Amino acid sequence: MDVIYFFDLLGTFVFAISGTLSAANKKLDLFGAMFAAFITALGGGTIRDCVLGSTPVVWVTDMWYLTLITVAVVFTFVFKKHIMGLKKTLFFFDTVGIGVFTIIGLEKSLGLGFNPAVAVMMGVVSAVFGGVLRDTFVNDIPLIFRKEIYATACIFGALLYLLLSLFNIDRNVNIILTVLVIIAIRLVAIKFKLSLPRITSKN
Amino acid sequence: MDVIYFFDLLGTFVFAISGTLSAANKKLDLFGAMFAAFITALGGGTIRDCVLGSTPVVWVTDMWYLTLITVAVVFTFVFKKHIMGLKKTLFFFDTVGIGVFTIIGLEKSLGLGFNPAVAVMMGVVSAVFGGVLRDTFVNDIPLIFRKEIYATACIFGALLYLLLSLFNIDRNVNIILTVLVIIAIRLVAIKFKLSLPRITSKN
Amino acid sequence: MDVIYFFDLLGTFVFAISGTLSAANKKLDLFGAMFAAFITALGGGTIRDCVLGSTPVVWVTDMWYLTLITVAVVFTFVFKKHIMGLKKTLFFFDTVGIGVFTIIGLEKSLGLGFNPAVAVMMGVVSAVFGGVLRDTFVNDIPLIFRKEIYATACIFGALLYLLLSLFNIDRNVNIILTVLVIIAIRLVAIKFKLSLPRITSKN
Repeated sequence: MDVIYFFDLLGTFVFAISGTLSAANKKLDLFGAMFAAFITALGGGTIRDCVLGSTPVVWVTDMWYLTLITVAVVFTFVFKKHIMGLKKTLFFFDTVGIGVFTIIGLEKSLGLGFNPAVAVMMGVVSAVFGGVLRDTFVNDIPLIFRKEIYATACIFGALLYLLLSLFNIDRNVNIILTVLVIIAIRLVAIKFKLSLPRITSKN
Repeated sequence: MDVIYFFDLLGTFVFAISGTLSAANKKLDLFGAMFAAFITALGGGTIRDCVLGSTPVVWVTDMWYLTLITVAVVFTFVFKKHIMGLKKTLFFFDTVGIGVFTIIGLEKSLGLGFNPAVAVMMGVVSAVFGGVLRDTFVNDIPLIFRKEIYATACIFGALLYLLLSLFNIDRNVNIILTVLVIIAIRLVAIKFKLSLPRITSKN
Repeated sequence: MDVIYFFDLLGTFVFAISGTLSAANKKLDLFGAMFAAFITALGGGTIRDCVLGSTPVVWVTDMWYLTLITVAVVFTFVFKKHIMGLKKTLFFFDTVGIGVFTIIGLEKSLGLGFNPAVAVMMGVVSAVFGGVLRDTFVNDIPLIFRKEIYATACIFGALLYLLLSLFNIDRNVNIILTVLVIIAIRLVAIKFKLSLPRITSKN
């Protein structure tokens, strides 16, 4: 099996758990949790594919996505206590997830013949738009609009991937390096509480 | 005229009224009411068609949809008092609407060659996503994330339809049975205050 | 260069500034500002193109859009104080923007063979849906649902354009007249505090 496909499914699973947990915070019921899980896991790729005209979207033809999301919701309902104790593990896989989603969006866009700037943007869209939609549907201002170097890590990762491609680096090596850099940027940002500048009425 | 087409238009009309009334609750103006009516009535089918790659969506080629929604908004503005007195009638047609929308989404997906799990999901999307978008745009947490066996009724209805199809039941009979079961589940759920489990920090 | 294309890019630039400023009001960071700018500037056209099945959307193949939006965000961050002093100028270009976006949506829909009612609706969608999405993502009820003759100006402009087309008026003259009428309606509405009727529990 393709390594990136394996991590895509893993990322989908982790994003679905994150969606389910955010539904729990908002006291949503099982259906609300399912909805939040699907939106978080599939929202970014769906927006990307609709914008690029690459429909039907991938998860209506490959049943692994819907299956894993359903399993993730049930799993989270049953093992909630244990999952809450695994915050660090979840955070780690979530970061792997955004790294992989970034690369998938990037490679897909390049493969369809779009230019590198669009590909970087679509990498970021794939990685973050699901979480943005999740927050919007549960009536929060999306967290990533205010905190954390999250999208920025994806942008740097995507640029690195493009740069390394120019030197004909082996694709698998490139993917691993890119994901590692995305993880590193995010960890460093959290460790040192780095955040993006704001524009406020006081500037 | 096809019976399902007639009920599709009826469901569109009732969903548009429901959108207009929710706009009234939020003190939106006529344009806000139009927007809420269109989103409620067309949102689910539009998302479904974009995801499945079945565009242009149906309501840009068949003028009955836009016409009926416009009529519904005007009608609700003019006869608001009387409509408010018809809550039970509206509720009944709304339930018929979600039943019919479920079947339309299901049959369309199957007709396009997607597998039954995707078809069930698209049935539910057709029925509930318009209301979810309506609530999100007027800045509420979607009601169906927290209350009522609504989406669940659609899921059971869709599964029943698939099951009966396996026995080569006549399509019209199948549709009627499915819609009746969706109505029945919803009524029973409301009567007995049934709701889906939640996942909370206390589990 | 086509005049309408020039104004399309100008409208995109001004909408991106408006998105960035609304992000500032909500204390979003640079990424939130980028997101708001892209959504405001591109949201309407993207929804239109997805609904009409005209994908990939225009801004993934013509790099001017993404470039100008990025410039607009940086520009707004750097010159915020000066921009805040240019409210009237911004308002003027914003109104030009919605006028031009209305015509672009209208002409594109007609060009694809859709009927005039759909074309008017798609003109309005092109002009207003970006702002609606911006407000929704930053967790506000969209302003245009409650105040100002904004969408209404677009509708009247679009109808005028269709009417004048029937008389074989030169396209450029028609465009200029339409945009002027949209500007005029909006200015008159603000001057005299005109607004659309509401439907409330008291009617």
